Amino acid sequence: MHIVIDRSSKISVKEQVRLEFAQRIRSGLLENGFQLPSVRQLSAQLSISLVTAHKVYNSLEIDGLIESIRGKGSFVKYPKSLSTAVPQNIPQAIQNPFDWQLAISDYLPRASLWSQSAIRLSPEILDLATASIHYTLLPLELLQTSIKKSLQQYPHSLGIYSPYQGDSEFLSAISNYLVAQKIPIHTHQLIVTNGTQQGMDLFARTFLGPGDIVAMEVPCFPGTIDAFRLSHATIQPVPIDHDGIRIDVLEDLSTHMKIKAIYTVPTCQNPTGSIMSLKRRMELLEFATNNNVLILEDDPHRELALPPSQSLNKLPPPLKILDQTGRVVYLKGFSKFLFPGLRLGIVAADGTIFNRLLAIKSIADLGSPLWLQKALIALFSNPQLLQYIKKLIQRLEYRSELVTAKLSKDLNPLIRYQKKQGGMHLWLTLPYSISADNLIPIAHHQGIHFLPGSIFYPGEPEQNHLRICWTNLSDDDLPKALDILCRILNQSVNP
Amino acid sequence: MHIVIDRSSKISVKEQVRLEFAQRIRSGLLENGFQLPSVRQLSAQLSISLVTAHKVYNSLEIDGLIESIRGKGSFVKYPKSLSTAVPQNIPQAIQNPFDWQLAISDYLPRASLWSQSAIRLSPEILDLATASIHYTLLPLELLQTSIKKSLQQYPHSLGIYSPYQGDSEFLSAISNYLVAQKIPIHTHQLIVTNGTQQGMDLFARTFLGPGDIVAMEVPCFPGTIDAFRLSHATIQPVPIDHDGIRIDVLEDLSTHMKIKAIYTVPTCQNPTGSIMSLKRRMELLEFATNNNVLILEDDPHRELALPPSQSLNKLPPPLKILDQTGRVVYLKGFSKFLFPGLRLGIVAADGTIFNRLLAIKSIADLGSPLWLQKALIALFSNPQLLQYIKKLIQRLEYRSELVTAKLSKDLNPLIRYQKKQGGMHLWLTLPYSISADNLIPIAHHQGIHFLPGSIFYPGEPEQNHLRICWTNLSDDDLPKALDILCRILNQSVNP
Repeated sequence: MHIVIDRSSKISVKEQVRLEFAQRIRSGLLENGFQLPSVRQLSAQLSISLVTAHKVYNSLEIDGLIESIRGKGSFVKYPKSLSTAVPQNIPQAIQNPFDWQLAISDYLPRASLWSQSAIRLSPEILDLATASIHYTLLPLELLQTSIKKSLQQYPHSLGIYSPYQGDSEFLSAISNYLVAQKIPIHTHQLIVTNGTQQGMDLFARTFLGPGDIVAMEVPCFPGTIDAFRLSHATIQPVPIDHDGIRIDVLEDLSTHMKIKAIYTVPTCQNPTGSIMSLKRRMELLEFATNNNVLILEDDPHRELALPPSQSLNKLPPPLKILDQTGRVVYLKGFSKFLFPGLRLGIVAADGTIFNRLLAIKSIADLGSPLWLQKALIALFSNPQLLQYIKKLIQRLEYRSELVTAKLSKDLNPLIRYQKKQGGMHLWLTLPYSISADNLIPIAHHQGIHFLPGSIFYPGEPEQNHLRICWTNLSDDDLPKALDILCRILNQSVNP
Repeated sequence: MHIVIDRSSKISVKEQVRLEFAQRIRSGLLENGFQLPSVRQLSAQLSISLVTAHKVYNSLEIDGLIESIRGKGSFVKYPKSLSTAVPQNIPQAIQNPFDWQLAISDYLPRASLWSQSAIRLSPEILDLATASIHYTLLPLELLQTSIKKSLQQYPHSLGIYSPYQGDSEFLSAISNYLVAQKIPIHTHQLIVTNGTQQGMDLFARTFLGPGDIVAMEVPCFPGTIDAFRLSHATIQPVPIDHDGIRIDVLEDLSTHMKIKAIYTVPTCQNPTGSIMSLKRRMELLEFATNNNVLILEDDPHRELALPPSQSLNKLPPPLKILDQTGRVVYLKGFSKFLFPGLRLGIVAADGTIFNRLLAIKSIADLGSPLWLQKALIALFSNPQLLQYIKKLIQRLEYRSELVTAKLSKDLNPLIRYQKKQGGMHLWLTLPYSISADNLIPIAHHQGIHFLPGSIFYPGEPEQNHLRICWTNLSDDDLPKALDILCRILNQSVNP
């Protein structure tokens, strides 16, 4: 376990070290029963005072993450799944034939989605957590047609490596699709990735490291936080308002720190669903140019913007298109509205930033599967694709209204949520004293699953939020799941 | 550009810094014409003496990598492609609209395969560089049958995310295949990766960082070196002899350093093709256990071991199978003998090492494509797969004999190469004074391409080697390419 302390940070050393432990424990990377170094050892390893080391463990114990036993030491006390009431025998020795491995240190600070996936759900539980569109709404027939066509047209591509950048025909098809969406990005700017998650990981690995500061919207997609934390950069949370990331906060931060990069999902933000105004986009670009900051723009949900407040024709362009300076790195995913089972996305960049991202793609996996790219060329060239997107928006609009009607009728008004502008999520805020994490075992017991809001924060988690995805269930199951959700949340507010 | 200096290393600081620059320049990460920091700046940035900084630039200039111009500074002088005689106008200002980007520092130390791919080859050049099997030898029909079947059987998998570990049915099919190959590895040990390159990258990111020492065979696959260099660990080269990696050297090293991990390709090593004996495997495991070292075993070529010296039944088992302690992480690729166009491989591990690799896989890309896994279930369950492998070995044996006959007849005996035991490469050694890098422009001019041996070394490159792949060309083209190769190499020895 490697802990990087930033002694120039405004956050206290104690708080930094506490957070490193807390995130590893909450992720399950430090397992239940794991013996922590003694206060003396921790103090020596990190060159911190004994008092600070003691305070770190004290806070962790108050938060219920560890247990200190006089004469024995401090042990992680955090069951893997909060939903399974595993009896805790601490500090019982771990019965693991690979016990010696615990001494092998690693560089993982947190892995929040992995820790969520470790929760074993029985199949009858209705999943409001996974962010995808129910497969009956996806264009599976268009996909099958495209795949069959490629088997005839490109059989040899099964037996050939892809160029690191991607297949040139596939890149052309993607570029044409983007142009049709009024996003003029061209093949020489594109690199194929395994979904946008790989794109953000490549960016973080190339440009972020210990001592670098990356500003990000909060709340924010946990996978991004994981990737940034893994780079050991310092994450600076920036709040959002109705128009998007707050420039006044960025300006204020930049008076006393050098921000290297900003991460944002300007269109249908995850988890709030909000859309950054054109004015705010221009202000953000101006800030970035004035302060020589890179922008990582993540755009997986653009096709899911909802009318009437927004339509594809009225949406402000991506930052990448508004930018004249080559400082925006643009991630475009297709998992959310087309094919989560194929995991192909793209990253678009210019100049040496493009070169450097391509270099790291070659190291990460030597390129994405050639044949999979060939299999999708017909899909992206098919005029029916745009018709499908239109129809999908109509169906999601219907669903979205169903969800709003349901919640406004049945949910206690103490529980707040933002009116949807697009995307597939809803971000719910409970009264401050209620922890959504604590509701998860109850939810599982009653037959639903959702994501606790706590994993959407890079630093100290706020626990009174939760995210639901309203597109992942069938038409039949969604109302049932919402019923259960309202019941649980109302009960938590008014027990 | 971030340079990590290990002041406890036996390698001098000057040499470490020189190598950091040299690798970035040879990779093309520092572009031709790029202005290096001044001697004074470098000295201040790295806290090294002015004399050392001066010596670094002096060596780089002697090696022909940079040019220092009095009153102007030091500039990278290394054309992107050695094969294209680009006129060099140094220190002409770079005409790049994204000039400001050069000041954005990154964490990339080298990217050798990417730099090779930047060489633009005209289509008529015969490619002896790419390590793959010509598609006419691959089981493309079996693959197509499997894919078509999955479209009928698992259409919904196009629209669903994969578990991070991989699809359970696919993992079962892989496990059954491995068991049939006498490699008893089970589903709970397996994680699906995007080829073995991702597997080694995941390992490096999890366990290697600045200050850690990883020992690796030399010469060694450049993609592994790239991944390890990116982790900023210290790479300790270890020579191999006829039986494999030299344990006496490892023993010697371990008297004065703590080795954290060892990387090896015990079966059909890349690039030499040699096979580690059973005795050496046991010794290696004993060394690792005694010194608490992890082993990363890479096994992409096992199916390509050639008779009569080896056959699948006589091959020593993988280290992973011989190991009782859970310290071997095993990478199994399928790109070399089955489907380079699909890029699926697996990593096998135990205990918390498995958990940690799975956590990082979730951060790297949220899992490999579900549908691609489903598309291969029928292939791995098809008895014809084993028949195909048998037939492939026969065809490769024929080719291998053709290559040996050709080289023993036509190649100047001053040029040495190892008798093939398996794999798809041949490692050729020229007299010490001849640089294979310098032969590449001549090779391109005469119509072939190969890999220079220099990229197979983690530290200072040996330049008098080259690697050819004798499986990538058609039956017609291979003899032509070998003719040209012999002519060029003979000419270099006897001009």
